[in-house]
Amino acid sequence: MNKWYDSSETGDNIVISSRIRLARNVKKYPFSCRLSEEQAYNLIDDVKNSIKNSRTVFGDSFDFINLNEKSEIEKHSLLENHSVSPELINKNKPSAVLIKDDETVSIMINEEDHIRIQTVFPGYNIKKAWELADKIDNLVEESIEYAFDEDYGYLTSCITNVGTGIRASFMIHIPLIEMFGQVENLGQAISKFGMTLRGIYGEGSEPLGSIYQISNQVTLGKSECEIIDALKNVTNQIIEQENELRQNLMKNHRIDLEDKIFRSYGVLSNCRKINSKEAMQLLSDLRLGIITGILETNGDVNIYKIMMDIQPGNLIKNMSKNVSADERDIQRAKYIRKCLENNI
Amino acid sequence: MNKWYDSSETGDNIVISSRIRLARNVKKYPFSCRLSEEQAYNLIDDVKNSIKNSRTVFGDSFDFINLNEKSEIEKHSLLENHSVSPELINKNKPSAVLIKDDETVSIMINEEDHIRIQTVFPGYNIKKAWELADKIDNLVEESIEYAFDEDYGYLTSCITNVGTGIRASFMIHIPLIEMFGQVENLGQAISKFGMTLRGIYGEGSEPLGSIYQISNQVTLGKSECEIIDALKNVTNQIIEQENELRQNLMKNHRIDLEDKIFRSYGVLSNCRKINSKEAMQLLSDLRLGIITGILETNGDVNIYKIMMDIQPGNLIKNMSKNVSADERDIQRAKYIRKCLENNI
Repeated sequence: MNKWYDSSETGDNIVISSRIRLARNVKKYPFSCRLSEEQAYNLIDDVKNSIKNSRTVFGDSFDFINLNEKSEIEKHSLLENHSVSPELINKNKPSAVLIKDDETVSIMINEEDHIRIQTVFPGYNIKKAWELADKIDNLVEESIEYAFDEDYGYLTSCITNVGTGIRASFMIHIPLIEMFGQVENLGQAISKFGMTLRGIYGEGSEPLGSIYQISNQVTLGKSECEIIDALKNVTNQIIEQENELRQNLMKNHRIDLEDKIFRSYGVLSNCRKINSKEAMQLLSDLRLGIITGILETNGDVNIYKIMMDIQPGNLIKNMSKNVSADERDIQRAKYIRKCLENNI
Repeated sequence: MNKWYDSSETGDNIVISSRIRLARNVKKYPFSCRLSEEQAYNLIDDVKNSIKNSRTVFGDSFDFINLNEKSEIEKHSLLENHSVSPELINKNKPSAVLIKDDETVSIMINEEDHIRIQTVFPGYNIKKAWELADKIDNLVEESIEYAFDEDYGYLTSCITNVGTGIRASFMIHIPLIEMFGQVENLGQAISKFGMTLRGIYGEGSEPLGSIYQISNQVTLGKSECEIIDALKNVTNQIIEQENELRQNLMKNHRIDLEDKIFRSYGVLSNCRKINSKEAMQLLSDLRLGIITGILETNGDVNIYKIMMDIQPGNLIKNMSKNVSADERDIQRAKYIRKCLENNI
């Protein structure tokens, strides 16, 4: 089964992916922090059954993964693909995740909240992501009664998620806003609209490859559609800003941009070892090169997929053995060279 | 006519070239600093005639260049090829140079001394360079009486050249001694043997591309052969040191060396603009890559020639028009890409 990120990217995709996360809790259990081990196992069974026993197409398309049985590497790999959150895999309590075969949906069980439904689509497809999340939410609700209050909406472990329990986000690639040192300003500006900007791996993660997540902070007092519309409005302005900077650079400093992009290509297609931070930065340049047409490809290069594949956990998982950081850097360089060979 | 530096390099050449310089003054004229303009023109004619009117093969193989008629660019280009010294082209007095067609010999007229005979051969060929310098020296002496003292030897404008008036030097490429931060120590160590280490463009020039000139400081009290032998002894030790470091790196850190060399290759074969300092450094890595066999070539790449060709004056001369530093960086990148294409 192809994953959502396997499709080649085309056009001037500033938005890499669109994501919805719904926080839900089950009425009959106390919140996760007060859940006994027995209750936790029962919770996991309840959620698993709500999907696997449903008489819908979803029943067979989800993998159930008991995280307590998984190695650190496997858990890290799930994290790097955004199928689970750091919070879920760093827990010592029973926890699990249901992942759809194409990785567009993951249902985390016993994270900060009992249930976290996540959906993701490539590109600017937040509406599709929302519709799918809503569908999964309804499916779970067929067999599970959520903790819900007529006045406050969905009740959640942390007060910031009360109400709709929704977090809508875009993963955006903004190399030029970053190049011109405007990320911090941007973060401050969008916070006035109740939005927040984070690194590729969420809260507290450092920016990598000029990729950021923009999402709503407020979940209460607005409908899901209003929240999504507000996110779209702010994101559209960011897209405009990035496009303007890009056009300006292409018009007035094209040779400098070409130089930067071709040097990055030269290093990536020749290096013999590379750490993930540098690789992410150079791959970001390559993505910009492809978007601007400065680099010609045969259409089969998916930079975002390479970015995921070269993360430490994924790299080790694909090598089927644990290796030192040095050896990882060597394998990462080899993998990137192979991906670029004959394609750019 | 091919120049001496046109021949492809092979083997583990740490020594790029061997050079002899003889300082001579004409008995009937005062030293250069006290020379009248008329005397200067007469001096130039005397030296020119000593070569051009000689009934030897040399008569036709030398070009006479009146430096006062040359543009700054042309003078700079001669300097970059080591055919003239900075002192000669920065003078406001009448000065000239005779250059042999293959550029193995240049005779500077009215430099610090009246006559400076320079010979150069590729590789470790200091004996050949000395024999040729001696031959040219004898040829000039057939028609010109040198300032010579039975006790002191050849009299020169600066006391440091009195005696033999010889400076013997090797141009050496020592990337590993530089990489390991040992250049300064080396300079101090060889000074105890009356030798000195300078950058590629001599006194006061900054090191470029890990290329240095090692030469004798003392010209008095020893014969030419003793001076040359002492230089060879010290240089042999430097070669040994560089080789040891190289073998050690190849044995214990080969992947790091490969990474460095391939990255430099990647940048040079892809960049769209590059200044001469960075280009020299990366070309030095390429030379090391070829020497160690890490980079495979089809045998037609002459890194030292590329290093000369990308110097600002040579670059402009070959473009036949003066351009901005920015445009030079673009043309330099283009030239290097062309040189490497299909060759490495």
